[in-house]
Amino acid sequence: MIETIAWKNGRVRIIDQTRLPHNLAYIECPDVKTLWGAIKKLQVRGAPAIGVAASLGVVLGIKNSRAKDPDSFMKELDKIIRYLASARPTAVNLFWALERMRACALRNSARSVPKIKGLLLKEAFKVIDEDKRQCRRMAAFGARLIKDGDRILTHCNAGALATADYGTALGVLYRAKAEGKRIRVYADETRPLLQGARLTAWELMRDGIDVTLICDNMAASLMEQGKIDKVIVGADRIAANGDTANKIGTYNLAVLAAYHKIPFYVVAPVSTLDLTLKNGRKIPIEERGPGEVREIAGRLIAPRNVKVYNPAFDVTPNKLITVIVTEKGIFHKPFRGTFPKLNPGVSPL
Amino acid sequence: MIETIAWKNGRVRIIDQTRLPHNLAYIECPDVKTLWGAIKKLQVRGAPAIGVAASLGVVLGIKNSRAKDPDSFMKELDKIIRYLASARPTAVNLFWALERMRACALRNSARSVPKIKGLLLKEAFKVIDEDKRQCRRMAAFGARLIKDGDRILTHCNAGALATADYGTALGVLYRAKAEGKRIRVYADETRPLLQGARLTAWELMRDGIDVTLICDNMAASLMEQGKIDKVIVGADRIAANGDTANKIGTYNLAVLAAYHKIPFYVVAPVSTLDLTLKNGRKIPIEERGPGEVREIAGRLIAPRNVKVYNPAFDVTPNKLITVIVTEKGIFHKPFRGTFPKLNPGVSPL
Repeated sequence: MIETIAWKNGRVRIIDQTRLPHNLAYIECPDVKTLWGAIKKLQVRGAPAIGVAASLGVVLGIKNSRAKDPDSFMKELDKIIRYLASARPTAVNLFWALERMRACALRNSARSVPKIKGLLLKEAFKVIDEDKRQCRRMAAFGARLIKDGDRILTHCNAGALATADYGTALGVLYRAKAEGKRIRVYADETRPLLQGARLTAWELMRDGIDVTLICDNMAASLMEQGKIDKVIVGADRIAANGDTANKIGTYNLAVLAAYHKIPFYVVAPVSTLDLTLKNGRKIPIEERGPGEVREIAGRLIAPRNVKVYNPAFDVTPNKLITVIVTEKGIFHKPFRGTFPKLNPGVSPL
Repeated sequence: MIETIAWKNGRVRIIDQTRLPHNLAYIECPDVKTLWGAIKKLQVRGAPAIGVAASLGVVLGIKNSRAKDPDSFMKELDKIIRYLASARPTAVNLFWALERMRACALRNSARSVPKIKGLLLKEAFKVIDEDKRQCRRMAAFGARLIKDGDRILTHCNAGALATADYGTALGVLYRAKAEGKRIRVYADETRPLLQGARLTAWELMRDGIDVTLICDNMAASLMEQGKIDKVIVGADRIAANGDTANKIGTYNLAVLAAYHKIPFYVVAPVSTLDLTLKNGRKIPIEERGPGEVREIAGRLIAPRNVKVYNPAFDVTPNKLITVIVTEKGIFHKPFRGTFPKLNPGVSPL
């Protein structure tokens, strides 16, 4: 398994995903600022991986704290948490992980500062371990939906590079393959940052899965030709009614899938649920800079000063989603009825 | 007006569109082989411009013919026409223009070879002049559909760079602006070859039209936000029932427009009609090489050996098209009833 993110000798080691597929290079983050930058620049990305990064980021942030008493330590911790929370706005796993770290410190605020530091590192390790287990469980549930011979379309990257294990949507495919099902995958390249072309194609090829790369605007043509049996994607935030924010272009695919009567599956851990939001309208959508659209791989591909609209995510309404697969099982509509029982734990900041 | 294609001193001068928007550079084609390559490589592209290029290509092909009698001249001409017809398969204007040149020669086959050569050049000039007039007429009809304040989404490039004048779909926008309507345009970048980012954004900015560049997969999000009033595109081939082949991604947009109840307009000259095809199923769809998807601006953006599917066009069924605007007027469904009266002239090869 690719080790997307890990704790190594007091540092957070991540694969620099902006350099894939050409270079499999690692970055060591010695401090919280470097890690914040890595999240911001998408060197580490994918909602579950961002959650893991944030929990380890807290450890980086407090490890050199000179606070003597729990009170001043908690103040420092709070500042670090707010700083990390500012890295990206949409994936709720970031806030979920940070709140979990805060809760751990609060639970242990009667203890000594070194003890709390140790418990926070342990909590971050727990986040990683749980992520791994959740990936396996989501994959096991999701693989039930995959048939031998299926041709599956995916968008962006919801694989090993988006989690601490082998992914959400792509985990389902790895598992289906391990069960002996022959599958064929089409990967949307996923402009502007090309996570499908750069990451998903690379991951699936490493695992020997039959993958064909397409541009995002080719999906409808494939569907019309009857070449897509299922669409499967990850998620960055899921509201209480099942409305799902995911990489820009996901809503596009969901409309196309519905038009062509193709099942549309979302795969995400319970930590991606945000039950504080009734529906998807209030999910904050990150807008990123114009350079990501005007340039590709450092080359200007449009007039230098052209106006650009660059939302990083869109929201797919629940009615376009066939099922949502979590580590707790496969959920059907209406999602509102079943989600509250899942108890995602900590509500977002 | 940008002069996309012209006859200059016995050569065909074209703008090398692969170098836009960074360089406005011209290529002079002294012979038919160079011109064939320019069509193949999309240095000149856009259905009407390809038609113009083909008619001038015939002139290039026969100008140095040493044929003494009309019979051997006609044989040479036939070879040149078949050669040019092999450059690209989808845009029917190519075949239409070639058949028109052949018909001109046949009509005059009793004349001397030098005389036929002269008449062929004259015929090519007629094709250019008609294209200019048609652009103006399509624009005048189409502009009736545009309201003050409209926010319009377009795909690929159906503008001055796709015709001998100011375009089909974009001609409508130029005309609407000239009529004093304030419009705002969103341009799909149009992967893989980025004609929207490179050509449409450049053209519209030159004319002072408010244009915002988006990635193809962002259109659905804009529509859902209520930010698109109309979608307007060109066409490469329109079957007798109105099914329309156009740049890959057009069908995608048409499905999205229908889902969001947004009018979807096709603008194309009558020479784009192919009444020999009952419907769009039989329109040949060009598949291009994997390099166009794996690389952008010469940079590899995916694993070097990843499989790629790269259709250059898709077909939008008539039911998703609100109206088709031609130089003969605005056509409503069912198109099958009215198109035959239009008499596109020559049927394709």
